Amino acid sequence: MRYGVNYTPSQGWFHHWLDLDLGAVRADLAGLAGLGADHVRIFPLWPLLQPHRGLIRTAAIDDVGAVAGVAAEVGLDVTVDVLQGHLSSFDFYPAWTRTWHERNIYTDPDVVRAQADLLTAVASALRGRPNVLGISLGNEPNNLVPHNPVKPEQVDEWLDTLLAACARAWPEGQHVHNAYDAVWYTADHPFTPRAAATKGAMTIVHPWVFSVNCAQRYGALAPETVHLAEYAVELAKGHATTPERPVWVQEHGAPAPHIPAGDAPAFAEQSLTNVRTCADVWGVTWWCSHDVDTRLKDFPALEYTLGLLTNDGRRKPLADVYAAAAADRRTDRDNSKKRATALVLDDAQENRPSAGPGGRFFAAWMDAARRGERLAIASATQAADPGLLAARGITGLRYLEERM
Amino acid sequence: MRYGVNYTPSQGWFHHWLDLDLGAVRADLAGLAGLGADHVRIFPLWPLLQPHRGLIRTAAIDDVGAVAGVAAEVGLDVTVDVLQGHLSSFDFYPAWTRTWHERNIYTDPDVVRAQADLLTAVASALRGRPNVLGISLGNEPNNLVPHNPVKPEQVDEWLDTLLAACARAWPEGQHVHNAYDAVWYTADHPFTPRAAATKGAMTIVHPWVFSVNCAQRYGALAPETVHLAEYAVELAKGHATTPERPVWVQEHGAPAPHIPAGDAPAFAEQSLTNVRTCADVWGVTWWCSHDVDTRLKDFPALEYTLGLLTNDGRRKPLADVYAAAAADRRTDRDNSKKRATALVLDDAQENRPSAGPGGRFFAAWMDAARRGERLAIASATQAADPGLLAARGITGLRYLEERM
Repeated sequence: MRYGVNYTPSQGWFHHWLDLDLGAVRADLAGLAGLGADHVRIFPLWPLLQPHRGLIRTAAIDDVGAVAGVAAEVGLDVTVDVLQGHLSSFDFYPAWTRTWHERNIYTDPDVVRAQADLLTAVASALRGRPNVLGISLGNEPNNLVPHNPVKPEQVDEWLDTLLAACARAWPEGQHVHNAYDAVWYTADHPFTPRAAATKGAMTIVHPWVFSVNCAQRYGALAPETVHLAEYAVELAKGHATTPERPVWVQEHGAPAPHIPAGDAPAFAEQSLTNVRTCADVWGVTWWCSHDVDTRLKDFPALEYTLGLLTNDGRRKPLADVYAAAAADRRTDRDNSKKRATALVLDDAQENRPSAGPGGRFFAAWMDAARRGERLAIASATQAADPGLLAARGITGLRYLEERM
Repeated sequence: MRYGVNYTPSQGWFHHWLDLDLGAVRADLAGLAGLGADHVRIFPLWPLLQPHRGLIRTAAIDDVGAVAGVAAEVGLDVTVDVLQGHLSSFDFYPAWTRTWHERNIYTDPDVVRAQADLLTAVASALRGRPNVLGISLGNEPNNLVPHNPVKPEQVDEWLDTLLAACARAWPEGQHVHNAYDAVWYTADHPFTPRAAATKGAMTIVHPWVFSVNCAQRYGALAPETVHLAEYAVELAKGHATTPERPVWVQEHGAPAPHIPAGDAPAFAEQSLTNVRTCADVWGVTWWCSHDVDTRLKDFPALEYTLGLLTNDGRRKPLADVYAAAAADRRTDRDNSKKRATALVLDDAQENRPSAGPGGRFFAAWMDAARRGERLAIASATQAADPGLLAARGITGLRYLEERM
């Protein structure tokens, strides 16, 4: 299992691309390598890569390559999210997609073609760098749905088009897409579990304990909270159509005050230990590297203190837990981890809330976890596929009891 | 009377700030100096100056200074619009003002404070450059009203706050604000003629012949079209509260197809000649310097061909007319130009459409112009102020005939 960190630059947050200081980047990344991380996830900004339709900035792509080069120097692999897009509450839209030029970023053919052109350019430029693993289309693009109404089949087409562009430009790259957890838990959300679990090289989960009202509802160190990431992995596997499709816990963090700073080390230790009981986990990438400079205004409060390191690069107690886990890493294909009994999930789209905190399915899985039982999850679709169940090593199915 | 050019960089349009090439800027500006221009108006981008609330980029302000320095080398003065904001249909909003962080850019106290901080920083940095004349708050901020609902008294407060910030940082600078022509012609527009005619060092007009359906209604070389800029100057003077307040024709251009390319030289020659019959014109600044690179998509068609120079720097026939006018420049305080007879305008806000193309007041003024009569304009407020009329040299008032 791989351990990585989402890289939030200490100087200027993601605005550092405007004033890129590779010395500062090197110091930041050396600090992460020093924790035992093996990779970082980096985030250029869409308006800087492609400020105009018809203008892809070579210099901006070169900057991404330069950061990847610095990562290589300190021994880190890199994954690159391109269409930001959304970052920690801020949405970076190029001017050519908004106001007078309002265009749907998922469905407007000109926009999608431009996005594909950009992904092609970035993928082509990074392909030759051995420490760059692949492209992630963009960070949680489903946060942009409120401004760009879209239907599930349109999201599917968008994902297919953009992932195909990456694959054409860089066939051997590990290209993925991701979404915030509405994909798993919100009935009418146009990004679907099926899209998450079938498109791209891996299924991505971002199991944040605050956004789904989990830590708030159950407590910072409650079983539901420290098992949430493990549960998200099993839920992802339960929606897959192939037995060993890898799952990447691409964002995992300890947001205060939902996880008080004093509880963060215990939360991280327990949550990471629980994730490691799952089979087929490609890796865990912690959010994030550095606390945000408090001179940068307007972030939601929890965003300022998510770093493993302080803004000036000092290790927080959380970082020691992360480093210990990374030092103790295991391989990601440990078949002994397979889970023999699966809880069966009605995978109708409208049933998604049942799988979220507060939902019946979620509660049933967590009740088992409280009893020390590690259940797999199988969608009803999987449960009807004996071959897939066998390949997953699932020998028993358990169904939710009917409501009294 | 001064002659200038709105500088639209040939390489990358205003995205050139991301890849600033001072050699290319020098070549562009030398071409404008070669036309006899004495100043350029330049446009940094708000999101690059202030990408985050709490982050003003020194490097971006240094870039503005560097462009001003290059202008000095070729003998050009400079005025700087800061809060772009709006440019040729594209709106550049910092991420911290939109979507999840939606804030009214005119009325939110945090935003206004940040804007004042930015203007203070830019003004302070430019104050020492003898060829920089002053600050313009931003290009046509009233184009942003649709996304930021605002009342006239709130606009007034916003203008006062920001102009005061400029004046505090740079007392001797010539600081102004501007707006597209809805200010003069649209009944319920929150930017008012009074604000235009009283706040800042000069009254600014942007007499575009297309945006008010003038060239379309009357024809490219019709009297209404070739007198529109002259009329806008007189209208501005008619709303003033001091007799010799200067007026700056800050944007003037020949947009195709409304002014066909073949008619552009004649339009420019006639329109500039007409403007020069007005007293108290500080100058005319042509929009724009260079045709937009057609590889940059999505501009309204007319925006691509507004340059005096082609995108690769060659003079267009229009440029020869501009150069001839600039070579023949006059002083801006020629009292012989004073107009003895004023047409009196009911300056109630809701009467503004009467003053626009298609309106009764506009038609009456233009009818006089067709007869070779150059009328001043006096608001009803001015008409009740004998001292002001006398200082303007107005000895006769003419009122619109009552409708039958």
